Amino acid sequence: MNRGVTIWLTGYSGAGKTTIANHLHKKLRERSIVAETIDGDTIRQKLCKDLGYSREDRCINIARIGFVAELLSRHGIWVIVAAISPYRDARADVRRSIDQFVEVYVRCPIKECERRDIKGLYRRARAGEIKSFTGISDPYEEPIAPEIVCDTEKETIEESIGRIISGLQHLHYL
Amino acid sequence: MNRGVTIWLTGYSGAGKTTIANHLHKKLRERSIVAETIDGDTIRQKLCKDLGYSREDRCINIARIGFVAELLSRHGIWVIVAAISPYRDARADVRRSIDQFVEVYVRCPIKECERRDIKGLYRRARAGEIKSFTGISDPYEEPIAPEIVCDTEKETIEESIGRIISGLQHLHYL
Repeated sequence: MNRGVTIWLTGYSGAGKTTIANHLHKKLRERSIVAETIDGDTIRQKLCKDLGYSREDRCINIARIGFVAELLSRHGIWVIVAAISPYRDARADVRRSIDQFVEVYVRCPIKECERRDIKGLYRRARAGEIKSFTGISDPYEEPIAPEIVCDTEKETIEESIGRIISGLQHLHYL
Repeated sequence: MNRGVTIWLTGYSGAGKTTIANHLHKKLRERSIVAETIDGDTIRQKLCKDLGYSREDRCINIARIGFVAELLSRHGIWVIVAAISPYRDARADVRRSIDQFVEVYVRCPIKECERRDIKGLYRRARAGEIKSFTGISDPYEEPIAPEIVCDTEKETIEESIGRIISGLQHLHYL
């Protein structure tokens, strides 16, 4: 049984992680690759309802996503994770636990994410209705050496997907 | 992609769930079936460190195991769960969420589990060192209509495994 690849999309809320995840999922399916998309919000709901947004809780959240991703990828399922996952150490821990791990930095300036504000969360964070909001009142630690970077302020979704597919080919996963 | 089968072993601590899980895993492998064993203790460590042993927390624990089992089985991986999972409603919720679900009641009288006391937990529970211990100071709700029952006080491990394999054949999963 070949191991699956875990493609870990990290970046601010509104940077485009979920959009990329959905498009990538389709692209992989076209290549007959079975993938599961794990969305940070779903995992919060299903596995982490107890957790808040402190550094410690966020790291536990990331570790739990990593645990599930490892289980799936161990059985040959590709996993696309879309989660802010703001802490470098927590992402590094996950990387160590997963055999074929590809970190994709979904880069978008916080100003642009706030301008988009698709879910209205930035407005609420600015109004103080949401505490510890990444980029506003909580840190985001940029990846230092991600395998792939998508620049969603400048690129179209097709360009971002193209970049990821090329990256996966370069890494010999495709 | 065929869905995997989730084989859910429920019963007291010390009833023999883990032993059955390990033997069953090997038996399935002999039939070229890829299975993942999910142990309640591991999940407590990896996904539920925050949870205690109240009714509510135990139900959340069971739901989280169910979430992971569903994810895996959806992709054709068989899942063997070994978890006390003492509450009927919580097990019924999991059953509803999983396509091919087989409940195996690993039955063993509490007296016999306590006599075995493999992990020394019953002694500690009796001494009051562990609160809310299933069968001693916390309820266990027996399955009403499990697909399979193993009677580990009377059966050898081979007999229990034989019973599960027959049950799976009867259900047309093997």
